Amino acid sequence: MANEMRMSELSAQSGVPVASIKLYLREGILQPGERTSPNQARYGQEHVRRLRLIRALREVGDIPLASIKQIVTALDTQSASIHKTLGMAQAAITPIAEDDNPDAAAVVDEIIAEQGWEAPQNPGRALVVAALSRAINLSGDVEVYQALLRAYAEAAEIAARSDIDAIEERLESDSIVEQAVTWTVLGDIVLSGFRRIAQESASARRFGTPH
Amino acid sequence: MANEMRMSELSAQSGVPVASIKLYLREGILQPGERTSPNQARYGQEHVRRLRLIRALREVGDIPLASIKQIVTALDTQSASIHKTLGMAQAAITPIAEDDNPDAAAVVDEIIAEQGWEAPQNPGRALVVAALSRAINLSGDVEVYQALLRAYAEAAEIAARSDIDAIEERLESDSIVEQAVTWTVLGDIVLSGFRRIAQESASARRFGTPH
Repeated sequence: MANEMRMSELSAQSGVPVASIKLYLREGILQPGERTSPNQARYGQEHVRRLRLIRALREVGDIPLASIKQIVTALDTQSASIHKTLGMAQAAITPIAEDDNPDAAAVVDEIIAEQGWEAPQNPGRALVVAALSRAINLSGDVEVYQALLRAYAEAAEIAARSDIDAIEERLESDSIVEQAVTWTVLGDIVLSGFRRIAQESASARRFGTPH
Repeated sequence: MANEMRMSELSAQSGVPVASIKLYLREGILQPGERTSPNQARYGQEHVRRLRLIRALREVGDIPLASIKQIVTALDTQSASIHKTLGMAQAAITPIAEDDNPDAAAVVDEIIAEQGWEAPQNPGRALVVAALSRAINLSGDVEVYQALLRAYAEAAEIAARSDIDAIEERLESDSIVEQAVTWTVLGDIVLSGFRRIAQESASARRFGTPH
C-alpha cells in the first residue's frame, strides 16, 4: 500500500509533469521514493499530497521554490507544535519589507494594540508599515488611513479567527498543516478577489450613473 | 507656478532616479513636460504626483509597467465617472485567473449572492474560484471552505465599505482617484499583513505551548 506507484503514475495522479517531479526531487522539496532498482523508485500517497501542495503554492500563490523548500522543511520537522510550524511557514511566504516611516509605524502599532494582537516578531507588521508609508507619501494625510486601517484590522481579525477555527475543527486530519499553509497563501487571494467584487458593487451604488 | 522644475529637481522631489523618469516618459506612463528648448523641458507638481503613484505601485505592489500604463490611461480619461475609472484601474491590477472548477464556482457564486454583491464581470470572481479550486484539490473537502469563504466575504465587505467611505469623504481632493487606485493595491498588502499578525496571535492562544 505505502509505495505503490512509479513516477509516471505519480505524475498522472498529481497532475505534475515528470520533469517538474525530477526537479523537486533534486531540490529536496519532494521526499525521495523507495528505491527498487538503481534506476527506479516507488512513490505513495504522501508524494501525491506533497506535489499537490507544491502545485497550489506555485500556480496560484506564485511562491518561489526557495520559499517552498523552507515550508516543506517546516512541515517535516516532526517535533514542532502546530503553532511553531505555522509560524515557520508564515515566515517563508511573507515578503520582507522595510519599515522605514516612523509615523506609519506608530499608527500601525496603535491599531495592533487596539486589537490586542500579540505577535511582536511577525513579518506582517513591516508589510503593513511599508504599504501605509507609500499611501501617506502619496496623499500626505495620515488621518484618512487611520480609519481605513482600523476597518482592515477588523476584517483581518474575522478572517484569521475563521482560519484558526477551521484548523481547530480538523486537527485530526493528517494533512491539516499542509492545508493550513496552503490556505495562508490562498486566503490572501480570496480576500483580494472578494474585496474587488465588494468594491465594484459598493462603487456602483454610490458613484455609478443611472442607466 | 505650473511647470517650474527641471528633470533633476523632479527626480529629487519625487525620489525617482532620472533614468527611470526618462523610461517612464518614453513609455508614455509619465506625461511630457513643457518644452523650453530642444533639449530641455520643465515639470510641475502633477509630474511629482504621477511619479509618486508609479513608485508606490512599482515598489510595494510590484505592478508591471504595462499594467501601470493601463492605469494612467484610465486616470487620464477625463470624461469617465469615478466608478468607471476605478473599474478600469481594478481590471489593470487584477491578475487574470482561469475558473475551471464548477464545484468551486458554485460555492463562490452562492456566497456572492448572499452578500448581495452585483459585479458579474469582476475579475475578482475568477481569482477566488481558482484559489478555492486549489484548496479543494488538496483536501477534497468543500464544506470546511464554505465556512471560511463566508467569513472572508464578510471581511472583504468591511474593507471595501471603508474604501468607498474614504473615497466619498474626500471626493473634493484633486488626487482622490490616484489615492483610490494605489489603495486598491496597498490595501491587499495591509489585509495580508494584518491577517498574518492576527493568525499568529490566535494560534498562540489556542495551540501555543505554555512557557
